[in-house]
Amino acid sequence: MTPVPLDKAYRLLNHGPTVLAGSSHAGRSNVMAAAWAMPLDFDPPKVAVVIDKATLTRQLVDASGLLSLSVPCLAQAELTRAVGGESGLDHPDKLARCGALFEPGPHTGCPLVQEAIAWMECRVLPATAHVAGPHDLILAEVLAAWADERVFSQGRWHFENAPDALRSLHHVAGGFFYAVGEPVVPERGH
Amino acid sequence: MTPVPLDKAYRLLNHGPTVLAGSSHAGRSNVMAAAWAMPLDFDPPKVAVVIDKATLTRQLVDASGLLSLSVPCLAQAELTRAVGGESGLDHPDKLARCGALFEPGPHTGCPLVQEAIAWMECRVLPATAHVAGPHDLILAEVLAAWADERVFSQGRWHFENAPDALRSLHHVAGGFFYAVGEPVVPERGH
Repeated sequence: MTPVPLDKAYRLLNHGPTVLAGSSHAGRSNVMAAAWAMPLDFDPPKVAVVIDKATLTRQLVDASGLLSLSVPCLAQAELTRAVGGESGLDHPDKLARCGALFEPGPHTGCPLVQEAIAWMECRVLPATAHVAGPHDLILAEVLAAWADERVFSQGRWHFENAPDALRSLHHVAGGFFYAVGEPVVPERGH
Repeated sequence: MTPVPLDKAYRLLNHGPTVLAGSSHAGRSNVMAAAWAMPLDFDPPKVAVVIDKATLTRQLVDASGLLSLSVPCLAQAELTRAVGGESGLDHPDKLARCGALFEPGPHTGCPLVQEAIAWMECRVLPATAHVAGPHDLILAEVLAAWADERVFSQGRWHFENAPDALRSLHHVAGGFFYAVGEPVVPERGH
């Protein structure tokens, strides 16, 4: 994984991929799938993500004030379904059950999922206090970001130059995804 | 356009498309491109969208408490770039200049862009008061939704069964988009 300059980090989420949201606190870590995530600002980069208060990940985010976002690829569709399909509250060994391998982020200790095509480490923003209760909405500043340079280089995605297995996932409903598709070439003269 | 049941309306944004955000107040209407939009809740459906306070659309949203989201398709890539590239504050005739044809939504009067593949009419939620100032984040309840049944039927998208021109757009940066791609078929036995 190659570091992404902070002023380009918003681009990791700009096209709307499903993410794996993670957090760690007091020796516990969890990761869950989250389709509702988006950039919130350019520089410093900020993100918004919906994390249900009935999840272990949310408990860890609330306790630590920290979270990670990993962008999974097509090769991780089954993993993404798996970590989205069961709760760490029901299964303390969820990550092992799902085969989710991760490393702790250097800034936050939050889990960065192996084989993902991008990572972000984030710190929860104060305004979250107003929207986490009524809307399960977490607002966070991105502290550091990385991407797989086979698909993200010179500040932007280049899915068309890499194996399809590295394309981002876009959740439709019920565990079905679309992969990101082809570039839309501007018309001549525009 | 066919009505979408409210409990399925979140699916119109679930895969992360770029949208056209619109609003109307006191006889003025505007539409702008917004890549930062996502679902916020299932039923009643809610959405979150970032709308910069330096835009005419934001002035109209703040004044009316109402907005519309139209989901543009590949055939509208130039239109999406155009309405994202200039401000209604600088060009009062922006919509005509850009060739943006629309009709007023029946619930809000906000502009629903013709030839888009989905529409939502929305009402701003109270919690917006806490996040619109610091983060330009608008939270809204979806009052009504419609979609083009060539690509959205039985409560979900079916891009693979329609012409590519009807695929959703996913903004990367600088007016470049990816189209949504192919379905990710679950592995056998899972």
